[in-house]
Amino acid sequence: MTQDMTLLWGSGSPPCWRVLIALEEKNLQGYNSVLLSFEKGEHKSQQIALEEKNLQGYNSVLLSFEKGEHKSQQVLDINPRGQLPSFKHGDRILNESYGVCSYLESQFKNQGNKLIPECGAEQARMYQRMYEGQTLAQKMADVIYYNWKVPEGERHDSAVKRNREALIAELKIWEEYLKKGPGPYLAGKDFTLADVTVYPSIAYLFRFGLCEKRHPKVAEYYNSLKSRPSIKATWPPTWLESPQGQDLLKDI
Amino acid sequence: MTQDMTLLWGSGSPPCWRVLIALEEKNLQGYNSVLLSFEKGEHKSQQIALEEKNLQGYNSVLLSFEKGEHKSQQVLDINPRGQLPSFKHGDRILNESYGVCSYLESQFKNQGNKLIPECGAEQARMYQRMYEGQTLAQKMADVIYYNWKVPEGERHDSAVKRNREALIAELKIWEEYLKKGPGPYLAGKDFTLADVTVYPSIAYLFRFGLCEKRHPKVAEYYNSLKSRPSIKATWPPTWLESPQGQDLLKDI
Repeated sequence: MTQDMTLLWGSGSPPCWRVLIALEEKNLQGYNSVLLSFEKGEHKSQQIALEEKNLQGYNSVLLSFEKGEHKSQQVLDINPRGQLPSFKHGDRILNESYGVCSYLESQFKNQGNKLIPECGAEQARMYQRMYEGQTLAQKMADVIYYNWKVPEGERHDSAVKRNREALIAELKIWEEYLKKGPGPYLAGKDFTLADVTVYPSIAYLFRFGLCEKRHPKVAEYYNSLKSRPSIKATWPPTWLESPQGQDLLKDI
Repeated sequence: MTQDMTLLWGSGSPPCWRVLIALEEKNLQGYNSVLLSFEKGEHKSQQIALEEKNLQGYNSVLLSFEKGEHKSQQVLDINPRGQLPSFKHGDRILNESYGVCSYLESQFKNQGNKLIPECGAEQARMYQRMYEGQTLAQKMADVIYYNWKVPEGERHDSAVKRNREALIAELKIWEEYLKKGPGPYLAGKDFTLADVTVYPSIAYLFRFGLCEKRHPKVAEYYNSLKSRPSIKATWPPTWLESPQGQDLLKDI
């Protein structure tokens, strides 16, 4: 039975992007209900059109962080934390990006691309990189969101410096991993959940000015996956609108 | 083929404890090579004895955080971050606790207890709670480790207050989840990876003085699982030695 699927997401957020990539990889196509007329039942007709092609669609609802829409009732109804992504499949609710990706792979095992490799060695590397990716994301957030997270009276140059050094050390670990391989993907020869979950953080680093020359293997990985259909199709729309990012990380 | 398995761990650390529970649930028994004579090959004989019973054993190496053994060469050899747990299965290395637990469930699917439920609804709840558990662990760490993580000159009462309020709000969410059910486990009727990963954090909260009366459902969950064989067998040895915990969280 096909169950209604809805993703509430925001542009540019790595956690949201992870879910968008996983959905694409599993051949689940988003239809944008905001652009369709609910009254005319257009979202239903698009859903039926996808089903006729033997594809399952999901209702893709793009919300604006700037307008605070992630704190709107629509989100709070399924996510008490008021965060994006928020995801619903039938009456099942999942709002943790790693959780949604793992759930989709499990529920749609035989649809689209397999995201957990059969090979035990590759699987071990996948799980290791996937969760190390959370450390990378955390260290990135500590630098990028510092002023947003830490109230003015509590800010210290020493903390900023320490956070930047921690991110530099973390990136060295990833540079080394990608150098040692086996590539071309994070776990080896297959594109896996490790790439689904970590790629958005890596792209985010470059969006914030990370220097490609100083991190050549990370940059190579970043660039090589830009044209992958699932990634190209889900590139953050706000980044497409304003291709110029920020330079906060240019000296990292 | 049975491959050598080694876990380097420290007592009381929730990430280490997760892995110990997962190993027990999958019927993988630890033998303590420190107490056995390597010269006499006793660790091998214990391994063989386990194999004869059709059980696979793992080499359990308990290290001391106090003595800084998590930064020893033995750890650094397989974990550049110098952290515990560090885990090796044959030549596969996994040091992220969530990664080890997922890997073990995948590699030993038909051994011991099944930790990912078949039921889709329960599976969705499992993935959701499992990753929300990381937020709980983070908010707990922000309170418990504040003085250890933040250098003296950067500490602020306002930050301590905010962290404590965030932990209180987080615990309310969990209290609500456990009230609404379906229980008795986090994802429903089965003990799953959600319990494997979240239980050690919950036990840690009570070890640091969380008030059972103020968090009755969380306390009920905590107490009900104390006697589960995998949890009882892996209860932190340092906690058994000194049953009296701390009271840092008594007003939370």
